Formats: sequence, C-alpha cells, structure tokens
Amino acid sequence: MSRQKNPASFEFAAGNGLLHRREFLRGGASLGGAAALAFSSITQAQSTDTPLWMKVPGRGMEGYGQRSRYEDNTLRTVGSAAGTVGAGASRTPLERLEGVITPSALHFERHHNGIPDIDPAQHRLLIHGLVERPLFFDLESLSRYPLVSRIQFLECSGNGRANIGATPAQSTAGELHGLLSCSDWTGVPLSILLDEAGLAPGAAWVAAEGADSAAMVRSIPIEKILDDAIVAIYQNGERLRPGNGYPMRLFLPGWEGNASVKWLRRLKVTAEPVMARDETSKYTDLQPDGHARMFTFPMGVKSVITSPSGGQSMNGPGLYQISGVAWSGAGAIRRVEVSADGGRTWADAALTEPLLSKSLTRFRIPWRWNGDAAVLLSRAIDDTGAQQPSRDALLSDRGLKFNYHYNAVQSWVVAQSGEVSNVYV
Amino acid sequence: MSRQKNPASFEFAAGNGLLHRREFLRGGASLGGAAALAFSSITQAQSTDTPLWMKVPGRGMEGYGQRSRYEDNTLRTVGSAAGTVGAGASRTPLERLEGVITPSALHFERHHNGIPDIDPAQHRLLIHGLVERPLFFDLESLSRYPLVSRIQFLECSGNGRANIGATPAQSTAGELHGLLSCSDWTGVPLSILLDEAGLAPGAAWVAAEGADSAAMVRSIPIEKILDDAIVAIYQNGERLRPGNGYPMRLFLPGWEGNASVKWLRRLKVTAEPVMARDETSKYTDLQPDGHARMFTFPMGVKSVITSPSGGQSMNGPGLYQISGVAWSGAGAIRRVEVSADGGRTWADAALTEPLLSKSLTRFRIPWRWNGDAAVLLSRAIDDTGAQQPSRDALLSDRGLKFNYHYNAVQSWVVAQSGEVSNVYV
Repeated sequence: MSRQKNPASFEFAAGNGLLHRREFLRGGASLGGAAALAFSSITQAQSTDTPLWMKVPGRGMEGYGQRSRYEDNTLRTVGSAAGTVGAGASRTPLERLEGVITPSALHFERHHNGIPDIDPAQHRLLIHGLVERPLFFDLESLSRYPLVSRIQFLECSGNGRANIGATPAQSTAGELHGLLSCSDWTGVPLSILLDEAGLAPGAAWVAAEGADSAAMVRSIPIEKILDDAIVAIYQNGERLRPGNGYPMRLFLPGWEGNASVKWLRRLKVTAEPVMARDETSKYTDLQPDGHARMFTFPMGVKSVITSPSGGQSMNGPGLYQISGVAWSGAGAIRRVEVSADGGRTWADAALTEPLLSKSLTRFRIPWRWNGDAAVLLSRAIDDTGAQQPSRDALLSDRGLKFNYHYNAVQSWVVAQSGEVSNVYV
Repeated sequence: MSRQKNPASFEFAAGNGLLHRREFLRGGASLGGAAALAFSSITQAQSTDTPLWMKVPGRGMEGYGQRSRYEDNTLRTVGSAAGTVGAGASRTPLERLEGVITPSALHFERHHNGIPDIDPAQHRLLIHGLVERPLFFDLESLSRYPLVSRIQFLECSGNGRANIGATPAQSTAGELHGLLSCSDWTGVPLSILLDEAGLAPGAAWVAAEGADSAAMVRSIPIEKILDDAIVAIYQNGERLRPGNGYPMRLFLPGWEGNASVKWLRRLKVTAEPVMARDETSKYTDLQPDGHARMFTFPMGVKSVITSPSGGQSMNGPGLYQISGVAWSGAGAIRRVEVSADGGRTWADAALTEPLLSKSLTRFRIPWRWNGDAAVLLSRAIDDTGAQQPSRDALLSDRGLKFNYHYNAVQSWVVAQSGEVSNVYV
C-alpha cells in the first residue's frame, strides 16, 4: 500500500490550499497523518483500559428512540415576534448536520400564529370553486389515492436575508441560512385530485387555505398545481409533524416555503389570485423604484458552506474537508465551485449522488489550511445553467429594499486564530 | 377535463383487479370517486364551521420538534430475552411508514447486552494488527477525514425468519420483517483509514469490536472493508443514535446487520477470521446435513407489501393502492411484480426513483378489490438478475434448520371481511 505522501506532491486544484476533490479519496496517505491521533499521544491506560460502559449491561430498547445526551445541544434556533410565541421561525442548525436529509425534529418552521393542535379525525380538505364536483377528503380517504415520494428541499423565501444588511451578521450557517431543510416527502399528486373534481372553464389559480389561526392563504397558478404539487401526508417516513402541517400540507417543489400551505383545509379554484394578506403585505419583492414584484415563487440556485462556517473554530493548520449544501428551485445541481482565496481562483467540489431535482446536494472538497487568514466561498450552477450570483451582483440588480429570494454567494473568513465568521467580499 | 370513467374501461394489468401502474396517474377520474368523501355526506356544520384550532393561537416553536399526539402510537415492537432488557430487538413498524427513509427514532435495533452510554470525549477507535502504523481516532479527528453519504438499508440477517415456521405467524409487516430500516448514512471510507495505516503482508481479514458490554466481534474480509465499508458517524443528518452505535459504527452496505458492528472501538487486521462467539455460535446457516455455512454476509433480494398487510383491515370493496418496499444486498432493484390472485398472474409495480444501490425502493400499484378473498404477493428482481424465491423454493433449497437470510416472497390474504393476515401459498 502507498506510503505517506510528501505534502509537496498534493494535487492542488485552486489557490490557497484547495486540493483536487479526488485527493482525499484516491489514497488516504495524502492526509499525511494530519488528522489521526498520534499513537504516542495515547497513554497506555487509554489504549488498554476497558471503558466503564463495557463493564455494565447497557440500557434496554424503547419504542421511540432518543438521541445521545451528549448531542442534545443540536437544536433549532427559535425566534418569535415580540409578545408572541407563535409568530416567528425556527431554523435548522445546518452547521451541525451532514448528508442531505434533515431529521423532522430539526426541520425549519415558519409560523404566523403558532402550531395548531389538529385532530385528524375532524380535519377535512375541501376542493371547490371552479370545479365540476366539489370534493371533501379526510386523512383516511386521501391515503387511498396513489402516493408519490420525493426527496426535496423546502426553503423560506426570507432565507439568508440578513446578508442584505450593510454589516455582516455574526451568525452561524444555520442562523443565516437555516430556513432550509430537506425531507423524503410522500403525498397525493394534486393533478389527480383536481382531475377527479374536474376543472371548470376559466380555472387559472388555486387559493390554498391553512387551518391555523392565522388562516394562511396563498394563490397558486393552476399550472404549478397540475405539474408537480402534492398534498403531503408523510415526511421522512412518518406522518407529518404538527410544525410541518399535520395532518396534511400543500407541497410545491422548488417554490418559496410560504406557498406550501400547512394544515391544508381548502383549495378553491379561481380565475384570478385572491390577493390574500400574505401575498400583498408580505412575500412580495420591493424594487428600487418602489414597485413590488408579486408571485415570485421559484427559489433561486444557491449554496452554502456549512463546515467550516460562522462561529466554528479550526483546530490548527492542516488538512480539512470543506462541506456544504447546494440547491435550486429550477432543477438539479450541476456543479459547485469553491474558492479559498476570496474568489480569485475556484475548484470544483465533489457532488454526492444522486443529483436529484429540487433537492439538497451535498458537496465536499479537501483543503489544506496553512494557518493564514483565508476567505472561503461556494457558488452553485443548476442544470438550467443558472449560476448563484455574487452579493454585489444581486444587490446591484435588486436594490436594498427587498426581503425575499436572497441567494447570493456566502463568504466565510477564517482568521489566523482559526475563528470563522461571516464576511462580505 | 376527463369525466369519471366507467369501471369497465380500467386497464387491468393482471388477474383479480390489479390495474396498470399508470392507471392512477394518468387521470384521477379512473378512481371513480371511490375514495373521496361524498360531498353530500359532509354535514353543513362540518363544511362551514371554523374548527377550534383556528380560533386560538397555536403553540410556540421548540428547539427539537415532537410528533402529533395523535401519532404517538407509531412505535417499534420491542422484545428481549427472558430476564434481560438489552438482549433482543426492536422492529421498525414498516406498515405505518411511507417513502424510504426510516426516522432514526424508529430504526430497528438488535442488541446483545443493551445500549452503552458512551462519552464521545473518551471513545477511541484503534486500527492495529497487520498494519504498518497503528492509528487511533476519536470523533473529532475522524470528522476531519473525507466523508461520504449514501442512502442505504440495514437489515438483520434474522429478519423474516418467523416464516420458516410451519404455521404462518399472525403478525404485522413490521413484526415479521421490521429488522429492516433505511437511512442517509455519512461516514469515512475505511479504504482511506487503512491506506493511512498501511496494510502489512498477509492482511486478509479485519476483526471489528464494539464497545458494548457484549463486546460484539465480527470478522470481515478485507475486500469488503476496502470496497465500500465506512465508519459511520451521522445518520439522517444527525449524529448516530446510541441504539445505532453512537459515536461511531462500522457500516457494510448490503451485508447482514450484525457485521456492521456498533460502538466501534477496534479494527484488528488479521490473516484469518478470529472465529468470534457471534460468528460461530450465531449468525451461521445450519444446512440439512448438519453442517453450517459461515460468513454468508450479503443479504438477498427481497420485498414485502406493507399496505395492505397483516393486521390491517380494508374499508370495503373499491380502489386501493398496494404499497411496499424492495431491496437487495447485491445492488439496485430492477423490477417488482405483484400478484392479487395468489401468484397465478403478475403485474409490474411502479418503482419510485431514484433506484439506489443497496437501498430501499418503494413500489406501488393500484388495485380494485372486488370484496372477495384475495391473496397478495410481491417478488423483486435486482440488477444482477437475482429474483426473490418463493417460500417453497427457499425451504426446499435451505432446509428447515436455518435461522438467517430468509428472503422468500411474503403472501398476505385479504378475507371477505377485509381482514388481512399472513398466509403461506
């Protein structure tokens, strides 16, 4: 087998220590032993003692498992409007997670008046309006329809907007971009339910209403509803969680999360959008000229490095793996480039297959940190050819008054001390 | 849009009501309104009343989310040997789940002396034996190595063995086949760690030891270790659960679960298998001639219909969707056939993409139940061409003394009453 390699023989892929993405995988010796604990540093006691937990029987099994008590600090960041507990958001701690599936207990939530406690036996979904046959469904009857399952992301349109601010917020990756999660969603295609109801002439929009006490309503173009929209009833194998719309929610792949109305109770087919509160007072994009764009549903192509990221610390110079997630509301991720020198040079990261449409894609690339200050960036390209913009380009295009659909490149600066923080480049 | 279709125009794909797998999807009207609640059956009050939960603010967000109190009965089935709490298994309730991801809290577990409570700061993995450089790793140092993520199943080799018995056990799909789960696993390829350690001449096996009080040890051929084995440290985004080996486990894609040693503390490279207790007294396949086959690691191609399945009840004649999971330790699922007439005729089920290697694949096919007794079966074929055997064929080949690697076709009988139960055909 291969011997340890001289660092000089690393195959560098871009400036400031970015290694070719295959460097790690084609022979671990490339690591130069940087990460393994030195054998000599392990005391004889540590290496030969039988640990306490091998001397006593372990605890028994349980019907519904729990996390290790050493991992209980992996939590969502929760924030609510003053004086409320339910008007706010909880954010996925992206920097603590790996892979692409978000555990349902850590899925982001954005509520307008809290989480309703719905008895599924009393909940009904009504499809009415411009249809030939109005229809009711409960959870039991919906479950007899053909189900489809897809691993797809959900992102709040306000995700990342702190970076519109003039000063970079000193936050973690999850606090900045954690209104983003990814699940194995299972539900009934709405094309089937609407075909059964029969669309009447003039049907062009669908107003979706939630059964929360904010009575969330959004208008959705009928084309999206007939394309890939589902009424989701399972998330990551289990029934939906209450915070994600139990017992049923609208799910619009790739579109802003707010439109995927939770606790879905009504779909009214209409000729025009209903101009609901949450599509006039909110979820519009104010432009520099004072006019707002409405119904800007699809989420743009975006990526974020989650390790290393804001608030984390490097453990001394040496070899690291840069890891992050990329996604696009338009389709699959085709390519993610990473820079370790503030954007002067870029290298392709390895993408974890399968490259699914409207899903998270995990990217990784090895990096040899030399101990100097360094700025890390990632930029994604989707399979329509759309590329994630720089912050300057996005703000120059959109102005400073908008609140939604911020998808610019995230930059992290690694200080000489090893501290990682948010920076604008 | 299309009108309701006369049942006579259904496109039948096989005997006793199996519909072509596209029948549901090409126009919901094929359902003939069988599943939607009759509009007239909804009382005026039900259709117009504002439900209680829309009249009060909902509850606030929390750092780690919970399930609905109406879904708390979705639990694993737990069983232990007499006088113990930790020598036994908990089974995934397959019949309550959809999609392919198993929530970590419902992942099956099989323990030999309970779940150790390991402090990750004190846990070490030692790689030694026939290596040039013995190496230690802790969770922190392992995390700096290149990680890979894959959605793959894990199955206990004893899964389904109740069906070897002469009388069909009256159990649910999960009780019979729920030593099977599927997760998004993330870990470090062992090829990298062993390359760094450097294999010495004669290296042919690796003995993997767990840090539980049963000190589980299994011998693994070095070829598998260098092929696709990982040291897993994340499961479905989060760190592993204690019941699945926290802080690190061996993960051998497609191989019997017992060999994917949990709480991994030691990998000793050897010239021969160590003939550990759990590969001599257990996990061998006793043949009719009294000789046992050892080291029969790969799990065979298998499938099971999870809905409808044992213990469930049909809600009257009409249209249903048959849903289940298929998997193979040799690769991806290529095809799943379903029969509704006890195996006389078969139709292809729709497979949910992506068709991943050594992963669960969800299959579904619509079925029009006419109310008579019917026997449902599924059989899977993987991309090596291997086909799931009938129970008769498997027992004729393997005898009646074996305990592991039972992968025969599962049959469910639907009685006229609608009750579903296990049956041998």
